[in-house]
Amino acid sequence: MKVYIAGIDGYLGWPLAQCLAARGHEIAGGDCLLRRRWVTEMGSHSAIPIAPMRERQAAFEKHFGGFTYREGNVQNYAFVKEAFRAFQPDAIVHLAECPSAPYSMIDVHHAVWTQTNNIVSTLNILFAMRDVCPQAHLVKLGTMGEYGTPNLDIPEGSFEIEYRGRTETLPFPRQAGSWYHLSKVHDSHNVAFACKIWGLRSTDIMQGVVFGTRIDEMGDDPRLLTRLDFDEGFGTVINRYCCQAVIGHPLTPFGQGQQRRGFLPLRDSMQCMTLAIENPPGAGEYRVFNQFEEVYNVTELAHKVRAAGEELGLDVKVRRIENPRLEMEEHYYNPDHEHLLDLGYQPTPVDGELHVMLADLMEHRARIEEKRNVLIPAIRWDGTRQRSQFLSEE
Amino acid sequence: MKVYIAGIDGYLGWPLAQCLAARGHEIAGGDCLLRRRWVTEMGSHSAIPIAPMRERQAAFEKHFGGFTYREGNVQNYAFVKEAFRAFQPDAIVHLAECPSAPYSMIDVHHAVWTQTNNIVSTLNILFAMRDVCPQAHLVKLGTMGEYGTPNLDIPEGSFEIEYRGRTETLPFPRQAGSWYHLSKVHDSHNVAFACKIWGLRSTDIMQGVVFGTRIDEMGDDPRLLTRLDFDEGFGTVINRYCCQAVIGHPLTPFGQGQQRRGFLPLRDSMQCMTLAIENPPGAGEYRVFNQFEEVYNVTELAHKVRAAGEELGLDVKVRRIENPRLEMEEHYYNPDHEHLLDLGYQPTPVDGELHVMLADLMEHRARIEEKRNVLIPAIRWDGTRQRSQFLSEE
Repeated sequence: MKVYIAGIDGYLGWPLAQCLAARGHEIAGGDCLLRRRWVTEMGSHSAIPIAPMRERQAAFEKHFGGFTYREGNVQNYAFVKEAFRAFQPDAIVHLAECPSAPYSMIDVHHAVWTQTNNIVSTLNILFAMRDVCPQAHLVKLGTMGEYGTPNLDIPEGSFEIEYRGRTETLPFPRQAGSWYHLSKVHDSHNVAFACKIWGLRSTDIMQGVVFGTRIDEMGDDPRLLTRLDFDEGFGTVINRYCCQAVIGHPLTPFGQGQQRRGFLPLRDSMQCMTLAIENPPGAGEYRVFNQFEEVYNVTELAHKVRAAGEELGLDVKVRRIENPRLEMEEHYYNPDHEHLLDLGYQPTPVDGELHVMLADLMEHRARIEEKRNVLIPAIRWDGTRQRSQFLSEE
Repeated sequence: MKVYIAGIDGYLGWPLAQCLAARGHEIAGGDCLLRRRWVTEMGSHSAIPIAPMRERQAAFEKHFGGFTYREGNVQNYAFVKEAFRAFQPDAIVHLAECPSAPYSMIDVHHAVWTQTNNIVSTLNILFAMRDVCPQAHLVKLGTMGEYGTPNLDIPEGSFEIEYRGRTETLPFPRQAGSWYHLSKVHDSHNVAFACKIWGLRSTDIMQGVVFGTRIDEMGDDPRLLTRLDFDEGFGTVINRYCCQAVIGHPLTPFGQGQQRRGFLPLRDSMQCMTLAIENPPGAGEYRVFNQFEEVYNVTELAHKVRAAGEELGLDVKVRRIENPRLEMEEHYYNPDHEHLLDLGYQPTPVDGELHVMLADLMEHRARIEEKRNVLIPAIRWDGTRQRSQFLSEE
């Protein structure tokens, strides 16, 4: 299949290109390299050094036979339309959004930028599909965070309900917890509408929190490695824990530390997106997958990282810090995730993956140590900016 | 109370300023006069001539004692923040969005513009409230169209449901039918979130389709009159029917003509917004009102306009045309609207209001006749642009 990856330079986009090319798919992609700039803006850098796009292209050419790359911004409709016209994709994977809740919470300008960037990029892709490749399949990355933490089971996208004696299948209500997460809610509504009125087909992936440093396809070529962020904006929780562990910094669950979320290793994210791409929905179908390996609470995960670290000879402490977010810290959480299992998803156990990650990151202690100050969050949901303090343990 | 009206030059904003000032409230407002430009872009003009803002200000000064006006764009955060800082409002009524479904469906640029304009304006207002007047009450105009036409009763904003043996109160799922309506859904999610994290208070009004030419406060000063559009972008259905009736053009329900919606006269919209403003919610409360007088189907309304027209000596025909929209043409529709009735809303009967409207519009036959060609829609939901044909009646 011909797969276009919007955001091919990113944490997920770059390994996905390799994973799909290794399976014989033809790849094209675009990026405007914003992720590199956002992390610089956060005062940080990737723990794992990443190659410039030109070197990435050379390595990809050597190992997988090349891909078509054009630098450009998905906020520019002409760029998107021309990319699709030239490549005529069978599938489009949209990874070109700004993926950070804290970044969107910095101030009005970051909130506006995150929402407009994400919404406009998706609208541009939908219109370009309609006009250029209406049979293509859009694989759109959403987030499990769209649902929030309701006191109900969370179905995959929609549910049948009875209300005052009548029955209907409706989208499951969304209660997202940041301007970023809300941008994904807005996208979901927009994508569903485009499928309905134009007969487009889409898989909208409500993805859990991804962690991990590698997929097998990267082998030992450092140019194929993907980034690993540990700043408060772009470092997700397990990735930050692992960076903390390797430099002897305590792992820092927020608040009560009982927040439950769905998580999955990077290699599972690749496996699931591949399953979605290779099993497209029908014309007009808007399909939602809840994509995660298992639900964990963030303290439980800290203990898993500690255990994996101790096996590698690391001395790991866990210390809770003030929660910069406004979120429930103890809550019911029971989301479905059957659709991908039905397609054959084989979950990777978390513990082994943590071992691989820590071993990878131990090689880059100095880079993490250099930016040690980004490991404690300061962007608060109330609009202030102030580093979280450690909480005293009773 | 001190009430700031964003969009004070518009169809609703201008009469609202008069209505509130007549009740003794202190008014300030802003506008960038975009509505005038949009209607020009649609090749049309207001059936009722409207005065330039400077003349409007002079008339307002004479009848109600003046208001503070600054021209500016609510997409500009500095403008919004300074307006609130200078005026210190108790209530903010946000009428500064682009209110047209067909306009948003023209092409990718209009879709992107409508969504970004509407979302950014609301984000700017929320952040400016947080930073300048966190005790103020935001009265935000949404639309009944956010809900779509589910096969269930529609509650006011949220509902208690049972699902797999657990119970929770959740936002009622939204299934909007245009990029414009979706922008309002996005806004609703954003406003609810701001109330939750920052303790802001808001009334989010899911308003039905407004019709009408006047409120009593306008008296006989033509400078106080508000606009009345009849083009496909900015003319709502009853307003277009009435313009069609006075020039002998058939009234044109779309498709089967059994679409059911909530409607309300302009004077009821003013009455309801006044009730919301004068009865603010508590801090942190996000309150939703479904705001309409009654549910009608669009053919039934055409017959009401015909009957009112015949009393005035007009010969009125009703002829269905191809539906440019993609929507259900026969469906269940039973939305609640108790919250405003509980606050004392006294609905105005539709038939008398139609009589007033037709009499007002008969004075402006020549202006409507001049733009007769805008009365048949051409913007189609499938992305093409082609005038609707009359349907043959069996």
